[in-house]
Amino acid sequence: MKPLHSLALKVEGGKLWVLDQTRLPDQECWLEGDAPMAMVGHIQRLSVRGAPLIGVAAALCFARYAEGGASPKALEEAYRHLRSARPTAVNLMWAMDRMQAALSGGGSVLELVNLAEAIFEEDVALCEALADRGAALVSRGEAVLTHCNAGALATAGIGTAVGVIRRAFELGNLSHVYVDETRPLLQGARLTAWELVRAGIPHTLITDSMAAILMREGRVQRVFVGADRVAANGDFANKVGTYGLAVQAAHHGVPFHPVAPWSTVDLACPNGHAIPIEERRAEEVRGYGELRWAPEASPVFNPSFDVTPVGLVTSLVLDRAVLTQAELRAGKLSRF
Amino acid sequence: MKPLHSLALKVEGGKLWVLDQTRLPDQECWLEGDAPMAMVGHIQRLSVRGAPLIGVAAALCFARYAEGGASPKALEEAYRHLRSARPTAVNLMWAMDRMQAALSGGGSVLELVNLAEAIFEEDVALCEALADRGAALVSRGEAVLTHCNAGALATAGIGTAVGVIRRAFELGNLSHVYVDETRPLLQGARLTAWELVRAGIPHTLITDSMAAILMREGRVQRVFVGADRVAANGDFANKVGTYGLAVQAAHHGVPFHPVAPWSTVDLACPNGHAIPIEERRAEEVRGYGELRWAPEASPVFNPSFDVTPVGLVTSLVLDRAVLTQAELRAGKLSRF
Repeated sequence: MKPLHSLALKVEGGKLWVLDQTRLPDQECWLEGDAPMAMVGHIQRLSVRGAPLIGVAAALCFARYAEGGASPKALEEAYRHLRSARPTAVNLMWAMDRMQAALSGGGSVLELVNLAEAIFEEDVALCEALADRGAALVSRGEAVLTHCNAGALATAGIGTAVGVIRRAFELGNLSHVYVDETRPLLQGARLTAWELVRAGIPHTLITDSMAAILMREGRVQRVFVGADRVAANGDFANKVGTYGLAVQAAHHGVPFHPVAPWSTVDLACPNGHAIPIEERRAEEVRGYGELRWAPEASPVFNPSFDVTPVGLVTSLVLDRAVLTQAELRAGKLSRF
Repeated sequence: MKPLHSLALKVEGGKLWVLDQTRLPDQECWLEGDAPMAMVGHIQRLSVRGAPLIGVAAALCFARYAEGGASPKALEEAYRHLRSARPTAVNLMWAMDRMQAALSGGGSVLELVNLAEAIFEEDVALCEALADRGAALVSRGEAVLTHCNAGALATAGIGTAVGVIRRAFELGNLSHVYVDETRPLLQGARLTAWELVRAGIPHTLITDSMAAILMREGRVQRVFVGADRVAANGDFANKVGTYGLAVQAAHHGVPFHPVAPWSTVDLACPNGHAIPIEERRAEEVRGYGELRWAPEASPVFNPSFDVTPVGLVTSLVLDRAVLTQAELRAGKLSRF
């Protein structure tokens, strides 16, 4: 396998490595990712996270396993384990099904390796297309705000929403980035802040409850967020807090843009009401990690995502187009 | 001094005690509060917090010191130390200036004790008046949302916003309370949740970023929050996050009510722009307590308060009246 490098995944000396994202921002530890069961563990412990990155990592792991001489039976088993490592990650199933189809079609080891490398490169190219289209929206001197981590840590490329931000910075148009900490899992504070420090992009970390102040004071000109699923009518699901942010952006007349590759669009899903929202463990709201600050006896509501209706979307940045709210409302997503 | 009891302050066996609020919700430790310098320490370490409670605690401490036979010179010194223990707490200065005026006027020890007890009782009565007026707004079966801790822990009585909630519950009209965790200092998660567990009031803890979802789903009928300062035009300052919540409430047509005693109204302050907003330490946003989760290198914006304009206020609950937005806009606050 040829050398590959992204922020949180690399093939080096013929071996696959993934960055342990649970140790960020203070430690940069790389984990070996050649063994399928080890990779399943990395995915389940969230050492590897971000739907696009998980799919790429699993495909590369599968190809490395084939390169190492695994039997067809062992490969079949690896396929099943890797594909089901995180049941909600659509990209993971999609990537593994492509690898399995190549294997079933009698593909050689070299063909499997080439396919996995292509899946990596496709993700890089998707991010570039998103970055170019999104950054074109940013005028000189604008400050933007983002939520959660839709960055290079979540993809093989430069990220989705954070990729747009990086490109706008490279073009000299971006003046500043405000980063929501993104309770309860703090991916903004832990991951996006770390990416921006590393990239040398001027930024400021805030709690989720401070975004409205910045908008009111005219300190934020635009909001870019990721999307976990986009419905046919333009409603979209993303990390909890996105909806409240969209309401605040609309109130202050601040343009609001979800950024997502086409693979995130689910045309079988008519609107946001059809997107199921998973609830997570109460401990995540009662504290963080080992630390608990709320009473054990207090019940908790902990939805991991929320749905933002198309009415609050200024435009949706896709790799193949930027669609305005009017275009989304006119059903343009279904006519691609 | 006669026995006095509130949730976080008591006079028992002739001694003054304060609940160490830094140990909540898991430990209930009472600290001796008879010595002025010890009380200054309790206030500065936030063991005693909440503007009304601080004023009451300092006045009682001063009176206990006089009861213990302190010299006029020692009392003069205690006055200065107690009055300046927290420079922004208007109630503290107001309470201590009343005590000092009584002392300068040649008041006996008994008169000082009576005055301190009266300051305690006045605060209890203020909370009762707020609770009665606010609870009258709540219709049968309503669920409400609150931010931060404007509860019994912050006053000598049943609290301001949480007092309203408790009274509505006692009247059988309140169905549920949603509690914002209130980043960065988590007073909702730590203190309000603890109060509601103790009071047996059905509640659910959420992160600040989840409030908008509840409003959209019709699960919140009303928002009650405290206020740190109310300007003459009805704009008000409160714990950071209040403004964003007000924007979300307006978007969803959910009535929004600040609750505050008359002493919080600052007629010398024409509007919210004139309210200075203190910024606090970056560490509070980069983590919590000893724990840090964001990069040390990431700059932080950490305003402790924000200002909500009168245009987002449905009505202001005062101890002497409930004023609608129209009445506030018509300048009714200045004509009391």
